[in-house]
Amino acid sequence: MIRFATPATFDGALRNLPMADDAARDAAAVRQAQLTKPAGSLGRLEEIALFIAGWQGAERPALDRIAAVVFAGNHGCAARGVSAFPAEVTAQMVANFHNGGAAINALAGACGASLAVVALDLDRPTDDIAQGPAMSETDCLAALNAGAAAVPDDCQLFLPGEMGIGNTTPAAALCAASFGGNAADWVGKGSGIDDAALARKRAVVDEALALHSSDCGSAFKLLQRLGGREIAAMAGAMLAARHRRIPVLIDGFIACAAMAPMARFTPAITGHCLAAHCSGESAHGRLLDALRLAPLLALDMRLGEGSGAAVAAQIVRSALAAHGGMATFEEAAVAGAI
Amino acid sequence: MIRFATPATFDGALRNLPMADDAARDAAAVRQAQLTKPAGSLGRLEEIALFIAGWQGAERPALDRIAAVVFAGNHGCAARGVSAFPAEVTAQMVANFHNGGAAINALAGACGASLAVVALDLDRPTDDIAQGPAMSETDCLAALNAGAAAVPDDCQLFLPGEMGIGNTTPAAALCAASFGGNAADWVGKGSGIDDAALARKRAVVDEALALHSSDCGSAFKLLQRLGGREIAAMAGAMLAARHRRIPVLIDGFIACAAMAPMARFTPAITGHCLAAHCSGESAHGRLLDALRLAPLLALDMRLGEGSGAAVAAQIVRSALAAHGGMATFEEAAVAGAI
Repeated sequence: MIRFATPATFDGALRNLPMADDAARDAAAVRQAQLTKPAGSLGRLEEIALFIAGWQGAERPALDRIAAVVFAGNHGCAARGVSAFPAEVTAQMVANFHNGGAAINALAGACGASLAVVALDLDRPTDDIAQGPAMSETDCLAALNAGAAAVPDDCQLFLPGEMGIGNTTPAAALCAASFGGNAADWVGKGSGIDDAALARKRAVVDEALALHSSDCGSAFKLLQRLGGREIAAMAGAMLAARHRRIPVLIDGFIACAAMAPMARFTPAITGHCLAAHCSGESAHGRLLDALRLAPLLALDMRLGEGSGAAVAAQIVRSALAAHGGMATFEEAAVAGAI
Repeated sequence: MIRFATPATFDGALRNLPMADDAARDAAAVRQAQLTKPAGSLGRLEEIALFIAGWQGAERPALDRIAAVVFAGNHGCAARGVSAFPAEVTAQMVANFHNGGAAINALAGACGASLAVVALDLDRPTDDIAQGPAMSETDCLAALNAGAAAVPDDCQLFLPGEMGIGNTTPAAALCAASFGGNAADWVGKGSGIDDAALARKRAVVDEALALHSSDCGSAFKLLQRLGGREIAAMAGAMLAARHRRIPVLIDGFIACAAMAPMARFTPAITGHCLAAHCSGESAHGRLLDALRLAPLLALDMRLGEGSGAAVAAQIVRSALAAHGGMATFEEAAVAGAI
C-alpha cells in the first residue's frame, strides 16, 4: 500500500504515474467493433468501456466491487459564516451515514457500491485559511495517508465523496490558487447561502489567496495551506488509486477541487478519472474544463457525499454490461453494414 | 385494457387524458423538504421522484417492475437505399433479442427491467411512404392495438423501444408533418449512412410530405400515412400507458417521433413521459424541444431498441432510492439550515 512519509513523497508520487494498459484497451476496441450495433451507436458508453478496460487491464472489465468512501472534516472558516448550516452538522451527518439515512447510503445501495465513512478529527477543525495554513504538514500527511488507506485494494471503481460544513470555501481557494482567478471566479452558493454569506465567503477566499500565494509551489503545499482534511484525504485516495490502476469516478465541486492542486503540477493525474457530473455549484463547469474532464451527467445535483458519483456509477455499469454481454455479428448471425 | 376499435377511438382517447395525482405529488414534495440534505440539492432527482409519485399516486413510489418492450417492423422505403444496413437485419436482430445478445438485453438487465419483443408482420413491410400511405387503416389499428396490449398492467415504468431498418426515414417525415419544416430539418444519418444515402433519404421524406400533406388532419392519419408498424405500436403503447397512469421513459429519435403526431394535436400527451436522453441523431434535440421534454442524459447514443431509456431508468431508480430511503432531519437528529 502506498504511503506518503513526507511532503516530498507525495509530490514525487505525482511525478511517477502508471498508465493504462493499452493492449487491453485495444482488445476491448476490437471487441466493440464486432458487437451487434452500428459502429459508435452506444456513444459514450463505448468510451467508458474502453477506458475501464485500459485501467483494469481486461478486454471485458468487471464491476463487482465498487467502493464509495465518504471523508468528513471540519473547517475553521465555518466560524466566518460561510455556510447555510452550522458546523455541528458534519458530525451529525457522519452519524447519519453510519445509520444509513443519508443520500449516499441510498445511492450507493442503488448502484451496488460498498460504503465506508472516514471521519477525520472532527473535533479539531482546520485553522481559518484566511489567517494561516489550514493544517500543519503532519496533519496534512495524516489526511493524505488516511485517504490512501481507504481505497480497497480489490475495488474495480472508486468513488470518493465528502462531507464538511464550509468546505466549498477552501475548495474555491484551491481552484483559484491552482488555476488562476480569484474568489469571484470560483465561489458559489454551496449548500445554499444568501448574498451576505456569499460576500463573507468571497472575502475569506480572497484573503486566503493573498496570504498564501507566495508559498504554493507544490501540490502538497496547496493542500496543506488552503485545503482541509477531507479534501487532502480525497487527493491522497485518488493518487493512491492511480498507483494501483484503479479507475476513479470523481463526484462534484469539492472532489474535483481536491484534484486541482495535483492537476496544476501534473495534468496527467486525471487520466484514470471520469467526471461523474457537472453539478449545480456555479464554478464546477469551469473546474471540469481546467481538469480537462467531460462530465457524464448534468442533473443539477449539488449535494456532495459522492452522490453524483454513485448515480454515474450506474452509467459505467450499463457501459460494461453492454460491452461484456452483447453478442458479436458473427455469434448472432446478423448482417453488418452494407 | 384499452383498445382502439376505429381511427376515431384512437383520436378520441387522445382528447380524454387522465392526469397525475396532485395530492400524491404534493405529499412527496413535503417529504423531499424534510430529507437530510440542503433543499434542492439532488436537482433533477428530486423532480423525478415527484413526477413518479404523481403518476403512481404514491408518496413513496416504487420501481420493482420496469417493463421494456421492443417493437419491430419493416419499411418499404428501405428498398430506396436509406439505411446503412440491409432490411433482413430487422428479423436477424429480433432473433438476437430473443437470444439475449443485443444491447437492450444487456441494458435492460443492468436496470432490472423485464424485456419483451413484439415483431409486427416483418415479412410484410409497410409501403413506400413516397408512393402512398405506409399502411391501411386496418393495419395501423392492428399496430396501435399491439402496442397497447404490450404494456403490462402492473408495470411501474414503461420503456418503449424499436427496431426497424430504415425507420428514421418515416420518423423524420412524421416530425416534419407534425411540427413543420422539411427533410433538411429532420433527416439525419440514422445508423450511419454516407452522403449519397442521405440525399436519397431526404428525397423520400420530401416526396412523402408533398404526397400526404393534404391528408394529415389527425394523429391517426399521420401514423397511418407516414409511420410504420413499430412506430404506431409505440404510439399506441404510450397512449395506453397514459390511460393507466403508467409513467413512460421515452428513448431516442424514433420513440419521440412516435409521440410527435399525438403531441401535434394534444401537447399534454407528453405529461406522463420523461425523455431518457438526447441522442446523436441530429434532429433529436429539435424534436425534444417540440415535445417540450428535457432529456435526462446526453451520452451521444443513437442505437434505438430502448437502449437510452434502459440507461436512464437507472437515474429514475437512483431518484426513487434517495426519495424513499433517506432519513428526515428529525429522524436523523440533524440540524437544518441556519
